[in-house]
Amino acid sequence: MKARLIAIAVVNVLSVVVSESAFADSIAEQPLTVNIKRLSLDAAMRIGKAAIDKCRKEGVQITVTVIDRGGHEQVVLRDVLAMDLSIPISKKKAYTAMSFNSPTSALVDRFDGAYSVPKVAELIIAAGGIPISIGGNIMGGIGVSGAPSGVTDELCAQAGLAAVQEDLELE
Amino acid sequence: MKARLIAIAVVNVLSVVVSESAFADSIAEQPLTVNIKRLSLDAAMRIGKAAIDKCRKEGVQITVTVIDRGGHEQVVLRDVLAMDLSIPISKKKAYTAMSFNSPTSALVDRFDGAYSVPKVAELIIAAGGIPISIGGNIMGGIGVSGAPSGVTDELCAQAGLAAVQEDLELE
Amino acid sequence: MKARLIAIAVVNVLSVVVSESAFADSIAEQPLTVNIKRLSLDAAMRIGKAAIDKCRKEGVQITVTVIDRGGHEQVVLRDVLAMDLSIPISKKKAYTAMSFNSPTSALVDRFDGAYSVPKVAELIIAAGGIPISIGGNIMGGIGVSGAPSGVTDELCAQAGLAAVQEDLELE
Amino acid sequence: MKARLIAIAVVNVLSVVVSESAFADSIAEQPLTVNIKRLSLDAAMRIGKAAIDKCRKEGVQITVTVIDRGGHEQVVLRDVLAMDLSIPISKKKAYTAMSFNSPTSALVDRFDGAYSVPKVAELIIAAGGIPISIGGNIMGGIGVSGAPSGVTDELCAQAGLAAVQEDLELE
Amino acid sequence: MKARLIAIAVVNVLSVVVSESAFADSIAEQPLTVNIKRLSLDAAMRIGKAAIDKCRKEGVQITVTVIDRGGHEQVVLRDVLAMDLSIPISKKKAYTAMSFNSPTSALVDRFDGAYSVPKVAELIIAAGGIPISIGGNIMGGIGVSGAPSGVTDELCAQAGLAAVQEDLELE
Amino acid sequence: MKARLIAIAVVNVLSVVVSESAFADSIAEQPLTVNIKRLSLDAAMRIGKAAIDKCRKEGVQITVTVIDRGGHEQVVLRDVLAMDLSIPISKKKAYTAMSFNSPTSALVDRFDGAYSVPKVAELIIAAGGIPISIGGNIMGGIGVSGAPSGVTDELCAQAGLAAVQEDLELE
Amino acid sequence: MKARLIAIAVVNVLSVVVSESAFADSIAEQPLTVNIKRLSLDAAMRIGKAAIDKCRKEGVQITVTVIDRGGHEQVVLRDVLAMDLSIPISKKKAYTAMSFNSPTSALVDRFDGAYSVPKVAELIIAAGGIPISIGGNIMGGIGVSGAPSGVTDELCAQAGLAAVQEDLELE
Amino acid sequence: MKARLIAIAVVNVLSVVVSESAFADSIAEQPLTVNIKRLSLDAAMRIGKAAIDKCRKEGVQITVTVIDRGGHEQVVLRDVLAMDLSIPISKKKAYTAMSFNSPTSALVDRFDGAYSVPKVAELIIAAGGIPISIGGNIMGGIGVSGAPSGVTDELCAQAGLAAVQEDLELE
Repeated sequence: MKARLIAIAVVNVLSVVVSESAFADSIAEQPLTVNIKRLSLDAAMRIGKAAIDKCRKEGVQITVTVIDRGGHEQVVLRDVLAMDLSIPISKKKAYTAMSFNSPTSALVDRFDGAYSVPKVAELIIAAGGIPISIGGNIMGGIGVSGAPSGVTDELCAQAGLAAVQEDLELE
Repeated sequence: MKARLIAIAVVNVLSVVVSESAFADSIAEQPLTVNIKRLSLDAAMRIGKAAIDKCRKEGVQITVTVIDRGGHEQVVLRDVLAMDLSIPISKKKAYTAMSFNSPTSALVDRFDGAYSVPKVAELIIAAGGIPISIGGNIMGGIGVSGAPSGVTDELCAQAGLAAVQEDLELE
Repeated sequence: MKARLIAIAVVNVLSVVVSESAFADSIAEQPLTVNIKRLSLDAAMRIGKAAIDKCRKEGVQITVTVIDRGGHEQVVLRDVLAMDLSIPISKKKAYTAMSFNSPTSALVDRFDGAYSVPKVAELIIAAGGIPISIGGNIMGGIGVSGAPSGVTDELCAQAGLAAVQEDLELE
Repeated sequence: MKARLIAIAVVNVLSVVVSESAFADSIAEQPLTVNIKRLSLDAAMRIGKAAIDKCRKEGVQITVTVIDRGGHEQVVLRDVLAMDLSIPISKKKAYTAMSFNSPTSALVDRFDGAYSVPKVAELIIAAGGIPISIGGNIMGGIGVSGAPSGVTDELCAQAGLAAVQEDLELE
Repeated sequence: MKARLIAIAVVNVLSVVVSESAFADSIAEQPLTVNIKRLSLDAAMRIGKAAIDKCRKEGVQITVTVIDRGGHEQVVLRDVLAMDLSIPISKKKAYTAMSFNSPTSALVDRFDGAYSVPKVAELIIAAGGIPISIGGNIMGGIGVSGAPSGVTDELCAQAGLAAVQEDLELE
Repeated sequence: MKARLIAIAVVNVLSVVVSESAFADSIAEQPLTVNIKRLSLDAAMRIGKAAIDKCRKEGVQITVTVIDRGGHEQVVLRDVLAMDLSIPISKKKAYTAMSFNSPTSALVDRFDGAYSVPKVAELIIAAGGIPISIGGNIMGGIGVSGAPSGVTDELCAQAGLAAVQEDLELE
Repeated sequence: MKARLIAIAVVNVLSVVVSESAFADSIAEQPLTVNIKRLSLDAAMRIGKAAIDKCRKEGVQITVTVIDRGGHEQVVLRDVLAMDLSIPISKKKAYTAMSFNSPTSALVDRFDGAYSVPKVAELIIAAGGIPISIGGNIMGGIGVSGAPSGVTDELCAQAGLAAVQEDLELE
Repeated sequence: MKARLIAIAVVNVLSVVVSESAFADSIAEQPLTVNIKRLSLDAAMRIGKAAIDKCRKEGVQITVTVIDRGGHEQVVLRDVLAMDLSIPISKKKAYTAMSFNSPTSALVDRFDGAYSVPKVAELIIAAGGIPISIGGNIMGGIGVSGAPSGVTDELCAQAGLAAVQEDLELE
């Protein structure tokens, strides 16, 4: 498995676009394994704390959830008076952002009707989720819920990502 | 934990706004515990009975559910011919009202599209739910279901709250 | 429990309107028990067969489900090539019709938005469900699914009810 | 529908034994409807309060749930410090007792292995559930959860039933 | 697809043993399609009615469920006073019997521990389920629930199968 | 059971239209069994591989799911970087296409409101699902998820079907 | 609501024993509200970090979950290579310990048979969960999962509690 | 992130043992990311086909499921007559084997009582599941279901792994 393989360009709507040269011939020519990057717990906690701190500065209490590429929680932090509902909502925002490799705020007008892809229980289209994606590698997602407006939720999620992004890009 | 800490001003949409002075510095400066107020069973029953009685005076049979801050039932009363469906509907109304600290009737136009926050199974946007919130303390929610119109459902929920509100404010 | 008590007038949207004189004073003045009428298996099978036969005459294969007042199946008949999906759909139509005491076809424009009462999993707003309601007694519901159009589904459900209605009214 | 029909002798393990003369010939000879007795809300509340009071006298806080024949809640009362878990446990005890027409305490040694009937999610085999069954009519169930011992739970459930039993038998 | 292909000998525990000559070489040599036999609605109803009638002769009211090879209901008949719980139990018995191609009564001692295959929600190991299997073709299952003893449940299921077995073998 | 029976004309929306002559008289005149065609594993794999290959040529990684008439997976293939969410989405597309015997892309404008048939969890109305239906026999469905556009998803599903269609028609 | 009210002695098995004098007379004499203590996010994070650190010293990677009295997550920390399964397991251990106010390790022999209270999905009887209970106030639970032995899991949970216990007792 | 970090020695029961030197100091000293190896689709298909072929040689039809480290399906292949139930069973076996990094056959006597870790729905303790673990890297799991005996299921799963193991070790 070469590093360049996963340096793919990721486009929208659940899609992972591969260079044609890598896969076009047949299934048999794939490498045996690929590497999926996963944040360490430390990195995930830095994200979580930065999101909590940013929202406190904004005067709100929230829940932040950081998930890995498999959709599973690495860190969940709920501020003491944040509503319980913010726990599942923050996870769904993180998962939605990761699955579409897009901030959830950018997905609001993407889907028509009431029966399209986002009707599945794991997804929610509301601002506050952003993907963790560095150099084409989707590593997970961050979701924030609890602020009076999704704009604030997203701001806090971004503050979370900012706490590790430079280090991730240098790695 | 000081009493004034939880005398926060609670705003809308899952949000709990804290005074910046209390939390802005760091996570480490929070007090170790906060107190979450919970109604006694007696108080919850007074709410439930008053809601049932009000709806009987309106000529309808309903279910009323009173939940605590953790979203769990304290009292459920279903009048004898109220439809079974009114049981989960009344709980979802109570939970929605508490989570947004708002009567559910005021939430009807708040969310766009079909995939936003209220798509999660625990929520329903239909009149008949009100929060139990005294002096900035969210203590739970009341949900009523079964009347021909949500306006009547909400009227009965309000009658329920009225049965304890004055005593709660004096406490 | 007197027979006249359950001869109530049932109105719409989950509501059961009681005469004020019966219940207005207090909870303590209700009779100790009421009688909920339930169709015999024979009656439910007559409904099911009549619905199947009507749809065969219309040239389609369907599933018909008859539920009791508690929402539980009494009879499910699926014609041999009807799609599996018609099983849960027919049950949800029956349950919706019973819960609102209305043909599901009459409910199509009743609810606004995407987060109102019918978002709960047990309900579906599509033609093909009718209540079993005689003389003010709601006894259950009939749901049909599988025809190319909901109009036909409802036609077959009505044929099912017609097979027992006269006898029920004479009882 | 004659009253004597539902005066059936009810035996154990989900069974309802009918007199052979009533049903032996064919499905077509059943009456069109039967009456299922349901407690009024008042009666159900008397049960609930009596169970709460009895357990308070025993020095414990509990949840009591009263269900109707369809398995749906009529009354749920949770004392203020009873654990949330006691809510679903009390319902499952009530449902189990009703379904087998037996106190749950009498079912403990009835089932072998780990994969028999009580493995379904609705059932639990632990003391604290009793059926509401008068003169052969199964009307519902009472479940209590929260006491240190199931013996106490059952004691409170019985106190609940005692509050209405005489009146029910006189009716 | 030749008829002889599906005339396989079916053995136990989820297994379908094929003749080695048919499949041994490679995946590519399978025929493109096989035929899965499914009972007509008429045949399934004959089964259901015969099971109900047999249990009435035994003096008990039951639910009988007939499922197809895909595990979906073809017929569900619940006698008027059979407990609601008998609906899902009868389906699980039918599904278990079909999946293991064995009466459920013969499976009671087959599995050790509490965490083996039958722990999945779809299965139950209790007498009353039998497979519908003619000449090596598994076509579905029959489940009966509601009698005081599983022996009676199984007796009624067998009476159901007997109502069509001879005709099925002649077909 | 004659082959011509299942050579029915299948129409839309969960419907299976039968010739009136076959079924019009009574339930009792149905043949005892019908044959439901099911693809072999080999055929299903040819479909799956062709869909994967087509999408790789289009430069995207996807999941393809092939289901049988009972709605159960025969083959699931997920390309290495396709998002996990594409697994359930591809299955729901396959199931929707089969249930309505229509490409999912043709269903987009078929349903009004937010509470109609496709609200059930098993269904999704988004391009990428097609039925496997030869000569009037519905045998299953193919669902593809993961491409940036549903148009591409459907293209790959069609490439999958094309890999076996001719052979199926010759059979 | 006086502080002494919630200084109750909490006993075992879902029970909360109240002083008879407080509640014995009637429901109407309860105070209107009680205070439920909840850990701050800071306190919950100190618990979580101490549990992670202790297990790292033991050479294992784990997930730790801290829940409040309502059963909802305050903090979830999963070490980078801990199995995903440790997420729900740690939550169930925390919830079980809180619900019974006992370390889960002490519950192993408490329940007979396979159908008793712990069969509900929220509970698990395996070492690694401990309650957060100070001076008779149950405030939540801590669950750890991922170590080769439950003994180590519990050791890490205890290290978590130790990080705040003294401060809690002084409060 | 160095390759040697994930070359950890993995022990039993959900545990991942790390070298003390790597993590002992504090959370802050972890590297920012780790690499989780994932099989390519090609490799997963080689496993699946080899398992199917082995079981065909043994004369049985099965389902084989290959999951990645996140617990999600990469390949599911169900032989044409394998029971539908073998689909979820094969996945649970794969997930159990991966989560405990052990063949499921070795776990049979590991857990006491009926309420321990494997009671969660995702797990099953029955032979037929093996982990995909090379040089200390857990990459996923293989589960086989459908043979008359779990011994045969495991044999086929091992044949699946054998098809790629040498290449994986050389990589």
